[in-house]
Amino acid sequence: MPDSKSEYVLGVDLGGTKIYAGVFDFSLECVGTARLSTKPQRGPDEVIERIARCVKDAVDECDLKFDQIKAIGIGAPGAVDTETGRVIFAPNLAWRDVPLKKSLEKLLGITVCVENDANICTVGVHHAELKSKPRDLVGIFIGTGIGAGLILDGQLHSGLNRTAGEIGHMVIDIDGPKCACGNNGCFEALASRSAIFQHIHAAIKNGEKTILTEMLGPSLNDLRSGDLRKAIRRGDKLVDRIVAEAAEYIGIAVANVINLLNPEVVVLGGGLIEALEDEMMGVITKTAMEHVLSGTAKGISIIASKLADEAGITGGAVLARREVK
Amino acid sequence: MPDSKSEYVLGVDLGGTKIYAGVFDFSLECVGTARLSTKPQRGPDEVIERIARCVKDAVDECDLKFDQIKAIGIGAPGAVDTETGRVIFAPNLAWRDVPLKKSLEKLLGITVCVENDANICTVGVHHAELKSKPRDLVGIFIGTGIGAGLILDGQLHSGLNRTAGEIGHMVIDIDGPKCACGNNGCFEALASRSAIFQHIHAAIKNGEKTILTEMLGPSLNDLRSGDLRKAIRRGDKLVDRIVAEAAEYIGIAVANVINLLNPEVVVLGGGLIEALEDEMMGVITKTAMEHVLSGTAKGISIIASKLADEAGITGGAVLARREVK
Repeated sequence: MPDSKSEYVLGVDLGGTKIYAGVFDFSLECVGTARLSTKPQRGPDEVIERIARCVKDAVDECDLKFDQIKAIGIGAPGAVDTETGRVIFAPNLAWRDVPLKKSLEKLLGITVCVENDANICTVGVHHAELKSKPRDLVGIFIGTGIGAGLILDGQLHSGLNRTAGEIGHMVIDIDGPKCACGNNGCFEALASRSAIFQHIHAAIKNGEKTILTEMLGPSLNDLRSGDLRKAIRRGDKLVDRIVAEAAEYIGIAVANVINLLNPEVVVLGGGLIEALEDEMMGVITKTAMEHVLSGTAKGISIIASKLADEAGITGGAVLARREVK
Repeated sequence: MPDSKSEYVLGVDLGGTKIYAGVFDFSLECVGTARLSTKPQRGPDEVIERIARCVKDAVDECDLKFDQIKAIGIGAPGAVDTETGRVIFAPNLAWRDVPLKKSLEKLLGITVCVENDANICTVGVHHAELKSKPRDLVGIFIGTGIGAGLILDGQLHSGLNRTAGEIGHMVIDIDGPKCACGNNGCFEALASRSAIFQHIHAAIKNGEKTILTEMLGPSLNDLRSGDLRKAIRRGDKLVDRIVAEAAEYIGIAVANVINLLNPEVVVLGGGLIEALEDEMMGVITKTAMEHVLSGTAKGISIIASKLADEAGITGGAVLARREVK
């Protein structure tokens, strides 16, 4: 229970669609959350005001006073300069060089630290779910797009331009479909939620049958990952095949990561995995094991995160706690 | 000049075909080398005796006494347990669990440290060629096979099973040719020297013309990387096309590494690059730049190593020097 005399930290997951904020005590127990739509079309200033509003809502939700919050950690969907807290580039928000840390600190009057969203989710999983045990961990998050976070020798690895983890643009099928980035056969163009949806639309156009059209109408309005799970459980062969194909590509990407980095753990998360863990993880693991070089995967775990939507806010809280301690 | 009163270290590059040993002073200047064929078919014990003989030849070559050598660093073509100095698995030598460090120390009476060959080459390039400046460096070595070494945050990254860097088995063309590992479309099956040779043989079988058959006879006996360079410089369209295709695959692999790890430097080495640097590096860099995500490659260097054959023995000397200092 939140306590009016204790101190807390706050994690924020800033996405292209929604802002999600969570208040955590210092043992990383979540004591309350709030959500607000992002509305990126209104521009960075208004989005930052909405983040501040969502933060205050979360604090109010758990009956705390704002001065009990000691720091905020926030994950942004793009390349981030963690030292200055500037978002260098975030395509889903149409942001370029936005001083998120500075603006939010001005609005809220407390320390804000900013990280890339896949990185912050990986930190959340590493800390809260895996108790910081693995020295080397790769987190792969699959939703509309695909991103990864790398923890190597216990530390986040960001690279020269702080863009490490762009696994969504790893080419795994050079003759594959066109990706939004302009190249062909990127992992994201083969196995993201968007790619799966495109494959389903194309199959319907080709005259293939799916109960998704019964569930949602012929144009599949408002199709979500959860609908894929429902369709598969109702015996939909088309959706089953397309989801299994995506799982194979994910397995190959996991094998590429194991061959290259040989981490202790590869953790999968994001909306697609959250909705389809039971349907996908078997194929992912089997395909990965078929594609790693003999002897290299011994003892390596390939797991689905249990944190689901909480990974980002938890990671944000971990970073915020580091600022305070 | 070698000096009869100074102390030295020794680096050894153990390959499937030859053993190459070099004596270095403490400023990492090479003062003498020796070579000997490996003869792996005679078994580990005899190979280890040959390493000892090659080491003594190198010392004799530069008119030193063996007691001036303070430690030996050796790169082996496979997975190595660096703590015990055991070679866990080396397919090109047909070795499994060979106590290389222990056996060689018994024969020579001085400290021996053992590393994977791509790792030791990367250490050599990092230290001697790049003056240890890059925090994050990926070395990709292309010859009969393809391997990589990763230096992350200034340290060699070996991973859980000490097999990190198996970039040769990164899938980049899921429908591509069969690899020796059993999978399809591995980087090594597309762009290694062996892959290039196979493509040339297949093209000749298909009735395509190349001056290589004039140079070496119809079955291309004893074809080497240098012959490819000669053929291209004499205007051979077939060889030019096949080498350019391999360079494109290498460029894609480099882009995958930059997208995933965002290192400061990607350095290319190995026999194929050494022989065909002028012919391949332009295509490699152009293709890599086309396949990295926008903004991620700023300031990242993609270079060919100047150390050539010396990378392995130099890296061995670096490791040996660390043992002494």
